[in-house]
Amino acid sequence: MKRKIAVLPGDGIGREVTRGAVEILEAVGQQFGHDFEFHFGEIGGSAIDRTGSPLPDETVEMCKSSDAVLLGAVGGPKWDQQPLHLRPERGLLKIRKDLHLYANLRPISYYSSLSESSPLKKEIIEGVDLLIVRELTGGLYFGKPSERTTLDGKEAVVDTLFYQKSEIKRIIELAFKLASTRRNKVTSVDKANVLESSRMWRETAEEVAKNYPEVELEHMLVDNAAMQLIRNPRQFDVMVTENMFGDILSDEASVLTGSLGMLPSASVSVDGCNLYEPIHGSAPDIAGKNVANPMGMILSAASMLRLSFGLEKEADAVEKAVQKVLDAGLRTGDLANSPIRGVSTSQMIAEIKAAL
Amino acid sequence: MKRKIAVLPGDGIGREVTRGAVEILEAVGQQFGHDFEFHFGEIGGSAIDRTGSPLPDETVEMCKSSDAVLLGAVGGPKWDQQPLHLRPERGLLKIRKDLHLYANLRPISYYSSLSESSPLKKEIIEGVDLLIVRELTGGLYFGKPSERTTLDGKEAVVDTLFYQKSEIKRIIELAFKLASTRRNKVTSVDKANVLESSRMWRETAEEVAKNYPEVELEHMLVDNAAMQLIRNPRQFDVMVTENMFGDILSDEASVLTGSLGMLPSASVSVDGCNLYEPIHGSAPDIAGKNVANPMGMILSAASMLRLSFGLEKEADAVEKAVQKVLDAGLRTGDLANSPIRGVSTSQMIAEIKAAL
Ligand SMILES: CC(C)[C@H](C(=O)O)[C@@H](O)C(=O)O
Ligand SMILES: CC(C)[C@H](C(=O)O)[C@@H](O)C(=O)O
Repeated sequence: MKRKIAVLPGDGIGREVTRGAVEILEAVGQQFGHDFEFHFGEIGGSAIDRTGSPLPDETVEMCKSSDAVLLGAVGGPKWDQQPLHLRPERGLLKIRKDLHLYANLRPISYYSSLSESSPLKKEIIEGVDLLIVRELTGGLYFGKPSERTTLDGKEAVVDTLFYQKSEIKRIIELAFKLASTRRNKVTSVDKANVLESSRMWRETAEEVAKNYPEVELEHMLVDNAAMQLIRNPRQFDVMVTENMFGDILSDEASVLTGSLGMLPSASVSVDGCNLYEPIHGSAPDIAGKNVANPMGMILSAASMLRLSFGLEKEADAVEKAVQKVLDAGLRTGDLANSPIRGVSTSQMIAEIKAAL
Repeated sequence: MKRKIAVLPGDGIGREVTRGAVEILEAVGQQFGHDFEFHFGEIGGSAIDRTGSPLPDETVEMCKSSDAVLLGAVGGPKWDQQPLHLRPERGLLKIRKDLHLYANLRPISYYSSLSESSPLKKEIIEGVDLLIVRELTGGLYFGKPSERTTLDGKEAVVDTLFYQKSEIKRIIELAFKLASTRRNKVTSVDKANVLESSRMWRETAEEVAKNYPEVELEHMLVDNAAMQLIRNPRQFDVMVTENMFGDILSDEASVLTGSLGMLPSASVSVDGCNLYEPIHGSAPDIAGKNVANPMGMILSAASMLRLSFGLEKEADAVEKAVQKVLDAGLRTGDLANSPIRGVSTSQMIAEIKAAL
């Protein structure tokens, strides 16, 4: 199989971990006889430095002509004082819009070898296997107006939570489709006792549910969901929610595993060109030190193999290699509070490659 | 001291737990020589049933002529299918507006005797002592428009996040004042990389901080805060945030203690008539069974003694009585997964009274 992969390292540890993913994918290509072609592009702070824009047009063009995109991470203190349109995060928000990445999938599963690294008790997280489906191109993130204003001559400010019904419908449909390949349960999270958008969300979920009689639909208020995720995470199979709620809940859910550094994500495009990125950020404090955990990025690449290219066997091989290395007791610094062998980023990549 | 207290039992277990608070306050009155006068009013579902409105005018009038308000809880499945303006939660939202309850204070502290009931590891929660200050009368909860609309002839929906700068300023000022009586640290939570309202929030926090040189100000993004609350809760002293973020984070933070049933809250009014309520809801599933945990409500009454009436000694006495009963191993059902003596609501109230 021949595939063109756009690689956007971005900033901070994004550069180190994408290097790892590319190495692993090259090894997979050799082993299974695929031809992966990598094209590198700029996004975020490093793009600002080189081109003046957090997402240059060339990058978007390159992604659009690729079969899938791998993204490292964006951001850093260097650009924090910039005006908004010149900040690294704008590149991320814009690429979501430009590539029509309407759904962000964040699987959270239990790694028995990492249970000491979680702040939660083992009996709470044992066997957790949930998938958060976050709407990614609507809601408070993109609604207009989002600006300073006045009320009776006094300073005020407004942001707007806007959804088209069709946007709500397509994300909920995806959640049901995914649930029907898993444990047949969808938890739709909203704040229907306060927000009109949540009431449309809830209605739409009920409508979609009619086409999936085998899938159970449950509604949960977002405040309760934030609590239940920690109190009893095993109750969840697929959780679907709007953009801002999803941002909060999926970062919260990361505590169920040992480290943010472990977690992959996939952003699904309307057009078929998906984007894969770890959920950790650019971690400027440890950037360039060869200590970052490359597993979130490598597992994101495994998701790409499965979801974008249909390469099930190959994806399994990568995931098993990661598992093997963990079982062997190897840990990067973020996971290091147990009987460990502390290893660097590049050692970890080499070990995963060897385990393939 | 003579004080007039409005008591709004509301629905479900609200009725049982307010009875407990009144009993304890009567005992405190006798013991310390105060004259607490209780006036009972309706709110929520029971108010709808009796008057057709979730918050009758008489209730508002009664509260306004009182020195403080005790609220149980509102809501239940019986009213879930009602149109929005006839739902119990509307009563709660409206009383916040009518009494100008601009700040909700939720203290979360560690009870060593309850550490087995928390989903978190003991070493994570040991010594936690944080205070969440949630803005309560602005943001997405009250912004207009909040309605169905169309875009290019297709169904859509909009909610509005609106703040006056003066609203942001007064809540942040309160947070700084409170922090200066505690450990001198304010964590201001926002989503400044996406929302314009968050950028005004952040600027305002910086401005207010200038008047409190002894208090450290830290900004944290809401997604990170949702993670840090579980990963390392001891880092927080006072956390201040807008209405919806506060709703989510304060319910999430409840997992740090053993049970939602333990946690009190105080809503501070611009006019001086504060409202005190437990953070648990009406829990229809266990209502009327004499098994609810009355401690959240009783500790809310203790907050009233301290914050509204300045009765420090009396508040301490109530809090110590609760602690004593916990130390003695008494637990209501919600806390019962440890070496316990399971007790009913009324027994628990009697034991706390005896311990006073
Ligand atoms: C960087 C930021 C804009 C982004 C978001 O809020 O979506 C990040 O938190 C994420 O979850 O990918
Ligand atoms: C019942 C609901 C409207 C309310 C809120 O969202 O404020 C509740 O969750 C709370 O936190 O007091």
